[in-house]
Amino acid sequence: MSQRSYAVIGLGAVGGYYGARLASAGHEVHFVVRSDHDHLRREGLRMESPEGDVVLPAGSLSVHRGADTVPPVDVVLVAVKTTNTGEVLDTVRSLAADGAAVVAMQNGLGVEDTLAEALADRGPDAAGRPVLGAMCFICSNKVGPGHIRHLDYGRVTVGERTADHSPAGVTVAVAALVDDLRAAGVKAEALTDLDAGRWKKLVWNVPYNGLSVVLDAGTDELMADPTTRALVESIMHEVLDGAAACGKPIDPSFVQQMLTDTERMIPYATSMKLDHDAGRPMEIDAIYAAPLAAARAAGVELPLVWMLHDQLRFLDARNRRLS
Amino acid sequence: MSQRSYAVIGLGAVGGYYGARLASAGHEVHFVVRSDHDHLRREGLRMESPEGDVVLPAGSLSVHRGADTVPPVDVVLVAVKTTNTGEVLDTVRSLAADGAAVVAMQNGLGVEDTLAEALADRGPDAAGRPVLGAMCFICSNKVGPGHIRHLDYGRVTVGERTADHSPAGVTVAVAALVDDLRAAGVKAEALTDLDAGRWKKLVWNVPYNGLSVVLDAGTDELMADPTTRALVESIMHEVLDGAAACGKPIDPSFVQQMLTDTERMIPYATSMKLDHDAGRPMEIDAIYAAPLAAARAAGVELPLVWMLHDQLRFLDARNRRLS
Repeated sequence: MSQRSYAVIGLGAVGGYYGARLASAGHEVHFVVRSDHDHLRREGLRMESPEGDVVLPAGSLSVHRGADTVPPVDVVLVAVKTTNTGEVLDTVRSLAADGAAVVAMQNGLGVEDTLAEALADRGPDAAGRPVLGAMCFICSNKVGPGHIRHLDYGRVTVGERTADHSPAGVTVAVAALVDDLRAAGVKAEALTDLDAGRWKKLVWNVPYNGLSVVLDAGTDELMADPTTRALVESIMHEVLDGAAACGKPIDPSFVQQMLTDTERMIPYATSMKLDHDAGRPMEIDAIYAAPLAAARAAGVELPLVWMLHDQLRFLDARNRRLS
Repeated sequence: MSQRSYAVIGLGAVGGYYGARLASAGHEVHFVVRSDHDHLRREGLRMESPEGDVVLPAGSLSVHRGADTVPPVDVVLVAVKTTNTGEVLDTVRSLAADGAAVVAMQNGLGVEDTLAEALADRGPDAAGRPVLGAMCFICSNKVGPGHIRHLDYGRVTVGERTADHSPAGVTVAVAALVDDLRAAGVKAEALTDLDAGRWKKLVWNVPYNGLSVVLDAGTDELMADPTTRALVESIMHEVLDGAAACGKPIDPSFVQQMLTDTERMIPYATSMKLDHDAGRPMEIDAIYAAPLAAARAAGVELPLVWMLHDQLRFLDARNRRLS
């Protein structure tokens, strides 16, 4: 069986890590990048990891500014921040025109809907091709152009979108991506219900991303103080309330598991804190506004999540003015 | 009728302002102070105000380190931060031993109870003497030793404590203090129900003090951003919920009045923000924990206020470690 080919849009901590793993495993991988274009062409890609470094020399890389120079691929990994999705929708559309599967390798809720809506006018070749979501449980940072540092974890869960958010089951496209990731040394898991997985990831993302920004704190500090530890737990339970209202109930034991896992983590600056500290926009829409809207539509209010959302909006707006 | 005599404990923005006004109006005022003692003895007290400066030369001031050198007085104004109440309880007890009325000129809820409990063993001369609460709606800062700068407002509301928090009515002690303050040029108002007044003041203090610290923002910034303006409003309504549960309902129109008043205020750093920025402990117990406990005891939870409380606890603990 021939290897499937990939296009990776965005070379951040996520696109850089998984793109490097897939390329290293022998897949044809085309990187569609903006700011790193010249660096990748000149210097190649370096991904350092406790599980083994990957160095991809410039000569071995397929690097592109846009979709027009990329040959047809089987899978498009959308690995930009959700705040940049709008800027790459045309690229996604072009790359998917030949029928590629599209994977939102992003944070938050409803991100696959954004892609699916943009792809609604795909031609007949692409009609019916799936939109997937992949959640990355990874501690990795981009430390410089073309330079990714993987710190810990790296597991991915993959599910397929359905228009009504009902479980798609483990589809052919999901199974194929999971197989490719596993063969590339990534722990990957197929989800029967994408949105259930999205809500589970929010259980971690909602409290830690927001509080780390608002309180200018690492996950270790938030866990070491009994007051914020309890606050994290309360916020997690609100996310569970939202999930349950949306028909994606999560077992309460998951909260304890997340707390324990986080306590065992090496001190970690969340992606939202890194974004904020660097003056970049934060993923407030995907991680806060979308689940809040979904919960509200299902008749449930999440007051603590709302307050965190509001605080982040204020800080983001000020950050935008300053930077 | 002879002028009543006062002891003022604490020379901050509040004790300095009202003490200066009362002294300027001809009352015998004894200042019981700690860090400002030598400065007041040497340089006197300077209070600058758009309504008229007050300069009290060193020779005209009665300045004390503790209660032992203070002659018997009619009224003891406790004007230290609630975070320092514990340190002055012995002083308050001594000053009140001859039967003085004691006034908590402080923020928060339940501060009169702390004083009343400490005074429970007052001798027979003092038995039955009242404990009052005074709420100061004032923008003033202490800009240096013995140097107070009054910026705006200055109104005081005064009520008398009852053991069961029921309305005391306008008692003789309340009326006398209000008269003295008015004669000294202070807008003063008698409250029939002290706790109702305390809850009303919390409607402002809870959102603005906490959010100004957590978001490192002035009241003007919080009001200029529609998201935080709405958040302030939501928090105010929670305070109203707490007040109502405690039998002190506040008309919802009061929320709009507070918002409008704040928008008209000159940009103002809240007292809690000044405390935090200076590395001093914040009045979290009096302004947050006490009303939260009272509301909970009355069967009502205030989730947004809890979250703000928790965030402040975290920041305060970190601030204590750093300073």
